[in-house]
Amino acid sequence: MKKTLGAKDILFPIPIALVVSGNGDNANIISIAWIGITGSNPPSIGISLKKNRYSLDLIRQTGEFTINIPSTNDMVKTDYCGLVSGKNVNKFDETNFTALKSHKVKTPIIKECPYNIECKVIKEVEIGDWVLVIGEIVETHVDEDKIENNKISIEKVNPLVYVPTIREYWSIGKLLGKSFNVGKKMINK
Amino acid sequence: MKKTLGAKDILFPIPIALVVSGNGDNANIISIAWIGITGSNPPSIGISLKKNRYSLDLIRQTGEFTINIPSTNDMVKTDYCGLVSGKNVNKFDETNFTALKSHKVKTPIIKECPYNIECKVIKEVEIGDWVLVIGEIVETHVDEDKIENNKISIEKVNPLVYVPTIREYWSIGKLLGKSFNVGKKMINK
Repeated sequence: MKKTLGAKDILFPIPIALVVSGNGDNANIISIAWIGITGSNPPSIGISLKKNRYSLDLIRQTGEFTINIPSTNDMVKTDYCGLVSGKNVNKFDETNFTALKSHKVKTPIIKECPYNIECKVIKEVEIGDWVLVIGEIVETHVDEDKIENNKISIEKVNPLVYVPTIREYWSIGKLLGKSFNVGKKMINK
Repeated sequence: MKKTLGAKDILFPIPIALVVSGNGDNANIISIAWIGITGSNPPSIGISLKKNRYSLDLIRQTGEFTINIPSTNDMVKTDYCGLVSGKNVNKFDETNFTALKSHKVKTPIIKECPYNIECKVIKEVEIGDWVLVIGEIVETHVDEDKIENNKISIEKVNPLVYVPTIREYWSIGKLLGKSFNVGKKMINK
């Protein structure tokens, strides 16, 4: 039996990312869960922000942002970045996160986050009270020590898994199978 | 030290969803990882499809689609739905997934998926070779037996966690903390 919940903004499991906007002393950090890849050619990514967010102003000023995937050991700092506004505090100072120079944009990446994405804004889409900002992914980085056999090891990256509505942070669990692979047994069965 | 990977469509950890398009005998299922909430008011969700996808035609014909979150025990069927085209096979027949009547749209939901979202298309955004289809979320459902203390239990839903680039399906692990909560200790510290 299904229980009907109404029209809700619930999807899971989703990533929790730290989005950096601005640069220099103005660089700000927010945590964001309304995020997703929006295309592969060119590689692009979308983040959705409420219209009155300070970070939206910063992104519009520079046309750039970076996405930084924190690991579980930075859960508290990640949550903090979603609780306070950059209008009032410098979150790089408060968290002791290190702003690292990006390669293709002026907005920095966060050194302590094992995976980082540099983006240039290509589109803005208004959806009610929210703005979906779509960025072309122009560069990505991963910590060298999170690579195993020439591939990213998700176990070593150890990212947070977010569950909205119940507002819980989880870890990843066990490897279950390979995609574009385990379903092959059903073809011509 | 960071290793630079180039401009890649990599984000993790992300959901893997089964998107149903069409209805009646024409209903089709695809697995999709390029998905994300795009706003909270109204609640909306975006899925990105390559321009030549059969499901994109079906979604354009009806202006509707549903999103269905499979649990780990349906990993093989989920992967299968991403391997073959609905032009050639009826994936409801092949998977034995049950098409359940939706409440607000004509496109069915998948009974075996513990969480389901009904959507009506509100926008289409072209991004290179891809089309981002944005749907307003008009209804959501969860299996009654996945509710605990009046809230969704993510452990009981037991969703797949997807990691693109390394193409791996993972389970969720352990509860680490509550959001909008664990970071409070950093305020006025």
